Amino acid sequence: MKSFRKALWFSVPARRGFINITAQVEDCLRESGIREGIVLVNAMHITASVFINDDERGLHQDLEVWLEKLAPHEPVAQYRHNAGEDNADAHLKRSIMGREVVVAVTKGGLDFGPWEQIFYGEFDGRRKKRVLVKIIGE
Amino acid sequence: MKSFRKALWFSVPARRGFINITAQVEDCLRESGIREGIVLVNAMHITASVFINDDERGLHQDLEVWLEKLAPHEPVAQYRHNAGEDNADAHLKRSIMGREVVVAVTKGGLDFGPWEQIFYGEFDGRRKKRVLVKIIGE
Amino acid sequence: MKSFRKALWFSVPARRGFINITAQVEDCLRESGIREGIVLVNAMHITASVFINDDERGLHQDLEVWLEKLAPHEPVAQYRHNAGEDNADAHLKRSIMGREVVVAVTKGGLDFGPWEQIFYGEFDGRRKKRVLVKIIGE
Repeated sequence: MKSFRKALWFSVPARRGFINITAQVEDCLRESGIREGIVLVNAMHITASVFINDDERGLHQDLEVWLEKLAPHEPVAQYRHNAGEDNADAHLKRSIMGREVVVAVTKGGLDFGPWEQIFYGEFDGRRKKRVLVKIIGE
Repeated sequence: MKSFRKALWFSVPARRGFINITAQVEDCLRESGIREGIVLVNAMHITASVFINDDERGLHQDLEVWLEKLAPHEPVAQYRHNAGEDNADAHLKRSIMGREVVVAVTKGGLDFGPWEQIFYGEFDGRRKKRVLVKIIGE
Repeated sequence: MKSFRKALWFSVPARRGFINITAQVEDCLRESGIREGIVLVNAMHITASVFINDDERGLHQDLEVWLEKLAPHEPVAQYRHNAGEDNADAHLKRSIMGREVVVAVTKGGLDFGPWEQIFYGEFDGRRKKRVLVKIIGE
């Protein structure tokens, strides 16, 4: 069994934002030389997500509006976590969108359906944060 | 390390529906010959889910009502994704229910608790869609 | 490829509660002798979750309030699953928080960001329930 590990860094200039990281995960896969196995991609921070969905701007706006409705940022004082912090909503939003994805590796590629793309979802940005790529296989 | 890959096809006649796919995943496991490892089961489409829960009709009705409340289909025009499409809500519902499950394989079987069953969750049906089963182990 | 499997038992005295199980997963990892690979940690019951977030009491209170708002326990009769049961909300809460986490194992340790901790999330407690730890790698 071979294994590969790399941390990717992202810095979203706003509080929230989505970044398509599929090409960077594919670069890791090529670098690993692994052709059959799985790749785990996870946020290393608890106010961010890694998820798979469509790379379509309208959908990303819908996700932003929807997450803000389900777990609003304001009023900040509604959350007990916000003693000296203001990111409780980011922890909740990340709970909906998920921490990680596991993707099959087949014949050296990400074994994806036609529209699957991997995104980094930032909910408490304006600083550098990491995503872990771990690949195991042969 | 051995690996196994199979795509399962599903066609749900309505917009939404849940299908118990546990037996088909167990068939894949038998076919693979893998006795220790993990199995990844994921929707290959971004308006569908694979999740684990109870095979109980009342619960499935509760899930349908609950998801429709959290991410309603109507009015279609509330979503920016719905320019020429009407499935934005399906992308949101799938975000709650999840894209994938990872299940332990122990002594050649799915290492499940007493009520765990694997479901395909369709949120934009009336066409053929795929679920990927990838098994790695020995 | 090596594999390791252990079930952890938990009994939460209230209906709901969160338990930090990171140290117990680390014990499993040491016991396994696996230094590169992945660990899967999943609830074996469908009214419980395993998730990764911050070990901060205020946040846990926020999660409790928020989940109760999105999937309220009362009135029990609002759910069709509750024919002879009263835990439909627990199935829904677990759908939001997730069944499982997959964590990278690097150099014999959980490959975590600075604040990542693994929690067992109980939504229908007052009885013994299991969490499965499965580790594969070398």
